[in-house]
Amino acid sequence: MFQLIELQNLINKEIEQFNFNIKPTELYKPIKYILKGSGKRLRPVLTLMACNLFCDDIKIALKPAIGLEMFHNFTLLHDDIMDKADIRRNKPTVHKKWNNNVAILSGDAMMIKTYEFFFSLEPKTLAKVIQVFNTAALQVCQGQQYDMNFETRIDVTSAEYIRMITLKTAVLLAASLKIGVITGGASTENTDLLYNFGINLGLAFQLQDDYLDVYGDVKTFGKQIGGDIISNKKTFLLISALENATCKNKNQLLNIIKTPDLEASKKIKDVTNIYNQLNIPLILKEKLNFYHRQALHNISQVTVSEGRKKLLIQLSDKLLIREK
Amino acid sequence: MFQLIELQNLINKEIEQFNFNIKPTELYKPIKYILKGSGKRLRPVLTLMACNLFCDDIKIALKPAIGLEMFHNFTLLHDDIMDKADIRRNKPTVHKKWNNNVAILSGDAMMIKTYEFFFSLEPKTLAKVIQVFNTAALQVCQGQQYDMNFETRIDVTSAEYIRMITLKTAVLLAASLKIGVITGGASTENTDLLYNFGINLGLAFQLQDDYLDVYGDVKTFGKQIGGDIISNKKTFLLISALENATCKNKNQLLNIIKTPDLEASKKIKDVTNIYNQLNIPLILKEKLNFYHRQALHNISQVTVSEGRKKLLIQLSDKLLIREK
Repeated sequence: MFQLIELQNLINKEIEQFNFNIKPTELYKPIKYILKGSGKRLRPVLTLMACNLFCDDIKIALKPAIGLEMFHNFTLLHDDIMDKADIRRNKPTVHKKWNNNVAILSGDAMMIKTYEFFFSLEPKTLAKVIQVFNTAALQVCQGQQYDMNFETRIDVTSAEYIRMITLKTAVLLAASLKIGVITGGASTENTDLLYNFGINLGLAFQLQDDYLDVYGDVKTFGKQIGGDIISNKKTFLLISALENATCKNKNQLLNIIKTPDLEASKKIKDVTNIYNQLNIPLILKEKLNFYHRQALHNISQVTVSEGRKKLLIQLSDKLLIREK
Repeated sequence: MFQLIELQNLINKEIEQFNFNIKPTELYKPIKYILKGSGKRLRPVLTLMACNLFCDDIKIALKPAIGLEMFHNFTLLHDDIMDKADIRRNKPTVHKKWNNNVAILSGDAMMIKTYEFFFSLEPKTLAKVIQVFNTAALQVCQGQQYDMNFETRIDVTSAEYIRMITLKTAVLLAASLKIGVITGGASTENTDLLYNFGINLGLAFQLQDDYLDVYGDVKTFGKQIGGDIISNKKTFLLISALENATCKNKNQLLNIIKTPDLEASKKIKDVTNIYNQLNIPLILKEKLNFYHRQALHNISQVTVSEGRKKLLIQLSDKLLIREK
């Protein structure tokens, strides 16, 4: 069995080997810049692990796995323009370091390059993999559009939110697993189980991200604490608070949202207080645990030996560190 | 043999049938808007004509043909953001009618949708077609990058310009033909001949576009005459003029380029005078005719009956209307 770090190294080594010295350099430098960031390589890791459930030789899934990392970084590049984000993984975002045009066009090139990584597959597998990928890729765009639509709404329901993060985050994790499974040569039933495992894992993962933005430790989270509160982002915490609030709490929250230029630390403190009063952290953790249990249930039904499943189960436990 | 208008109608009918009532509507409305514009449908027409050289049933190439139209419109959408273009086919561009974020994300969705149109092909053909498409798509991005790089340079050579328009314009026409030929089931030799025909046709077509911007009739050209001169665009005319200019003419031209806010009609008149003095229209027409002859030579070598080639030859003559 492979260790997580071995798989990450394998992926990083493959990315290191890319030839970025292609002309025009203006197009390829930003691609090198974003790909060499210190991401977790979660999507390609999932592809390799899923392939390894059914097949000892994971090399067959390596190029498609890299394609999924390429696509994920393309979405970050374009999303950062749309979200006007200045910092990503402690570095200036591409549109900040260069400009919007560079970020648009390099992103387009990454999107196209993604497909090249599937060409190593034999035609029948290629046809299947590209269809799975394409469906997910389009859903990611739909998710991003819903996320942007939510910015100007105050009546987003938690069900709508779950649907949005399913599209924006979970389907790509699910597709990464499914593509690994297809290259590994599994049955349709097992493919579907791993896909569902990915959806549930992705939802739990995003809920945890929402939680850590407010309740995390700045050192381990790697982002500014309270960033979502400052930018009025419609996270599960805020949506759930608006849904569960008393009339007084709701007016307080809406006032905070509507007032521009509030002092950041006070805003974070006030909103966190309301979340605590309404028991939102508990509501979120219950939801997170529900999806985590669902994910574990999905994988328990996959018809391979328990030993082979260990790595994926360990990964999901590692990703979802619950407080003691 | 099909008539051009029949093929265009077939393509328009297929596009009309798309279901654009998909949620989120914010993502799909701009796609409907740009696709329903009154384009010539040149790329899908070329795909159908190329398929028809070798195969009576062109339906097999219809969906891939639509994919190429989808991709072309995606490039227009993103290029218009980068070029800050307000008007396209007499309508506001997507980023003007909506905003940049909408244009970025709807463009991304169109790019992904493009691949779906290839899924109707059987796996082996699909694998071939996607590789041809991907190579061209990446080259289009490279061409756009070179075009943007040229904006800040005054020493672009006509050879560099030809290489840029090969990437930005000609390779997609060539790939459209090649994909039609592959679906029609032709030999490698014929595939390459049609690809080269497309490159030469594309180069001649772009040179004509540069010519018509200055010397065209506003009614038939459909764009403002002199638009390229006003925006200092590095067209073949300007590059060729800078290459061939006497010292006096060159200084005059550079002064005009460097002076902001010149009165438009005077600027157009002065630059056109320099072009005329330097015989640039003649140099351009010779180059255009060279590529047109090359294209006709390519198609003459294709091993099908002359009758079958008629439509493509007619189309290239129609696209390249030379003055008497």
